Amino acid sequence: MNTPHVVIIGGGFGGLETAQRLRKANVRVTIVDRHNYHLFQPLLYQVATGGLSPANIATPLRAIVRKQANCEVLMAEVEDIDVTNQKLVLADGELEFDILVVASGATHSYFGRDDWEPVAPGLKTLADATRIRKRIYLAFEAAERETDEELRKALLTFVVVGGGPTGVELAGALSEIAAHTLKHDFRHINPEDSRILVIEAAPHILAHYPEELCKRAAEKVRSLGIEVHTHTKVTEITPDQVRLATADEETVVLTKTVLWGAGVQASPLGKKLAAACGLETDRAGHLPVTDRLNIAGHENIFAIGDIATCLGQDGKPLPGLAAVAVQQGAYVAKRIAAYGAAVGKNSDGGKGLPAMASSATGKPFIYNDKGTMATIGRAAAVAEIGKHQFCGFFAWILWLFVHLMLIVKFQNRVLILLQWAWSYATFNRSNRIISGEQPVVLPEAKDAAASVE
Amino acid sequence: MNTPHVVIIGGGFGGLETAQRLRKANVRVTIVDRHNYHLFQPLLYQVATGGLSPANIATPLRAIVRKQANCEVLMAEVEDIDVTNQKLVLADGELEFDILVVASGATHSYFGRDDWEPVAPGLKTLADATRIRKRIYLAFEAAERETDEELRKALLTFVVVGGGPTGVELAGALSEIAAHTLKHDFRHINPEDSRILVIEAAPHILAHYPEELCKRAAEKVRSLGIEVHTHTKVTEITPDQVRLATADEETVVLTKTVLWGAGVQASPLGKKLAAACGLETDRAGHLPVTDRLNIAGHENIFAIGDIATCLGQDGKPLPGLAAVAVQQGAYVAKRIAAYGAAVGKNSDGGKGLPAMASSATGKPFIYNDKGTMATIGRAAAVAEIGKHQFCGFFAWILWLFVHLMLIVKFQNRVLILLQWAWSYATFNRSNRIISGEQPVVLPEAKDAAASVE
Repeated sequence: MNTPHVVIIGGGFGGLETAQRLRKANVRVTIVDRHNYHLFQPLLYQVATGGLSPANIATPLRAIVRKQANCEVLMAEVEDIDVTNQKLVLADGELEFDILVVASGATHSYFGRDDWEPVAPGLKTLADATRIRKRIYLAFEAAERETDEELRKALLTFVVVGGGPTGVELAGALSEIAAHTLKHDFRHINPEDSRILVIEAAPHILAHYPEELCKRAAEKVRSLGIEVHTHTKVTEITPDQVRLATADEETVVLTKTVLWGAGVQASPLGKKLAAACGLETDRAGHLPVTDRLNIAGHENIFAIGDIATCLGQDGKPLPGLAAVAVQQGAYVAKRIAAYGAAVGKNSDGGKGLPAMASSATGKPFIYNDKGTMATIGRAAAVAEIGKHQFCGFFAWILWLFVHLMLIVKFQNRVLILLQWAWSYATFNRSNRIISGEQPVVLPEAKDAAASVE
Repeated sequence: MNTPHVVIIGGGFGGLETAQRLRKANVRVTIVDRHNYHLFQPLLYQVATGGLSPANIATPLRAIVRKQANCEVLMAEVEDIDVTNQKLVLADGELEFDILVVASGATHSYFGRDDWEPVAPGLKTLADATRIRKRIYLAFEAAERETDEELRKALLTFVVVGGGPTGVELAGALSEIAAHTLKHDFRHINPEDSRILVIEAAPHILAHYPEELCKRAAEKVRSLGIEVHTHTKVTEITPDQVRLATADEETVVLTKTVLWGAGVQASPLGKKLAAACGLETDRAGHLPVTDRLNIAGHENIFAIGDIATCLGQDGKPLPGLAAVAVQQGAYVAKRIAAYGAAVGKNSDGGKGLPAMASSATGKPFIYNDKGTMATIGRAAAVAEIGKHQFCGFFAWILWLFVHLMLIVKFQNRVLILLQWAWSYATFNRSNRIISGEQPVVLPEAKDAAASVE
């Protein structure tokens, strides 16, 4: 019996869903990922702010698929995709495929200012999260020792670039750290003196939400003592300051800690695959896909999740949400399973696999929007579910519930809940250890250029 | 009122105990540590093998002493001690003291073969633990992909140098990983084929225990499938192999993973302080102290814990145990508190502090041995409590109980217990994520020299 080999690049929400849905299909599945774990990205900001441990939100891919006999995991870096010969070029080898699912996600975009990356780290990986955690807590440590009033203020100023969900969640967590977690920890500074700014070029923060909800979210954010600067662009970031520009004026904010929550860029594989298939990506590197989620002209190559541009029924691109990737993974798995079943029945005695059916058959992918939500600091969130909008404590409870349910792939979700409940009840971020291989160097206020990371 | 300034170098068991016991004393306390956390070292091997997260065994020092108004924490690296001027030389400043408690602990010793460190990492810090965790799990990943039979065997061979508690605990945890945790995770290798060796130069492993207990421990270790090589020296370690020598013969073991659990060396501050005071350290760098735990000739400088050599009542040096450091910390705090009280009563109106009373007054330090214990893999341990010796499951329950009680400084001990119970019940080491800033590089079997770390 012929058994097609399905290679999935990326063990995130989309890739993992595809793999698991192929559990009973007549296919061999290989998940290729550079990490050995699946990351629950929606809670990454909790790791970056010391509320959770990296292992709380990362589960070994092998552990997830251990009982799925037709699935194996390969920890490897994919360098290129050889479409003609149907194989992946790995950093240390090759891997042939019959069917390919590209689900390698996205990374930050600095809009052409990649030189800002070292001074303004983004939040996409576990390494990012521990790096940001280190910077936040080291800034307080340095402020405690600083005697110059102006430098101390700069150390206690935190600028979050981007008012999307990541930026707002980070700012909210920062305000909780300053107002509660570190309240009694220092002798020479008062962490409550911290200044937290969210910078957003658009007219509203959380701009994907309906305007009414945006306004309420902004009010809530401001009530936490966070400064929200909308209509404002960041024009320069150095280790010592950021330069902000509105339509009317330019201001300079002295700060030692800038966090990047602004742009997103599809994984570089998108561009490579597009070039190989004679397609073009959009400015953010997203691969265009058909309404069957395959690459035009390549029925056996699919792209799902943050790497792809998939148009919704309103003609706008679908947002970069876990829910989109998961539904796309399920859709693609269904198509592949149907193909596997057909191939299995029509065994041709070794003449190789037939081509996949034209993408014109079957129903196109339709995203079923069950709502979106984002947290704003302690016990507050905004949510839009169908036509209903929620803001505040109830939205937060919803957020908590949905995320805990979503985290079902994690065997230790009870532990996460307990850890969370503990942090919540005690204001204690027990994971705020400053780790790293290097001996710790405080950001030396007088020579900040050398102190970056 | 005069208030002496007590500076404590090191926030480990000894330093923290000293600080906390000075809670109500007429002193100002500053704990200086290069890390911002207190580390519960006895469970470090659990982090190294993926059973616990770093944050489970590390608590921010500031959080521990937040309510102790007379205590502050300084995150800094101590470079030298200026005995004459009573101040510390920090990497980025100075710190004056009236009374100094040196509790900076110990690090690994490679017995003059420091070149072995990159290939055979030791286990003393959180960074060590995550590095070892990465190496262990990457070895299995590489073995899964390796097609050469001999290289695959080398990847599945783990050599632990040193049969003390650390070595035995690491080997036990490795055997559990191979036999249980990873049982169904791979498709091309069987983790149970792993070979685990413990190499010990002495006639017995766990040589600090009575001979009868050693033998039973060795039996138990062997019953886990671990090869115990006593009377055996390691003469060479390379990225590809270790060379072992007994009295009769030399053998070579092909391996990609060597873990160092052998030598211990006092923190380098010991040697510097000894030189400044005209004393000599022993070969392992331990500072000699009087039976009052101060440095001879310096009544106001104390050394406790792993950095000091303190003779027990039997004339032998006390072992490097948390219990010793804690009792020493309590003793030193009592002396300092008495001095603080005396100084406070006899306020001299700003003429400076009187010298500390001669160390000949008061009772000398006596270590109260409440027993020692070590785990051997899953649900087994050895323990010696007074004249009672235990081996096996009961000893393990004892070990568990004692360590959970000891961890009282950790506010999240309930979580640790739950996490532990979970790991135990499910054989699941949920913390086996391979982390690190660099993109993951598998130990390339053909070019192992480049793959180290």
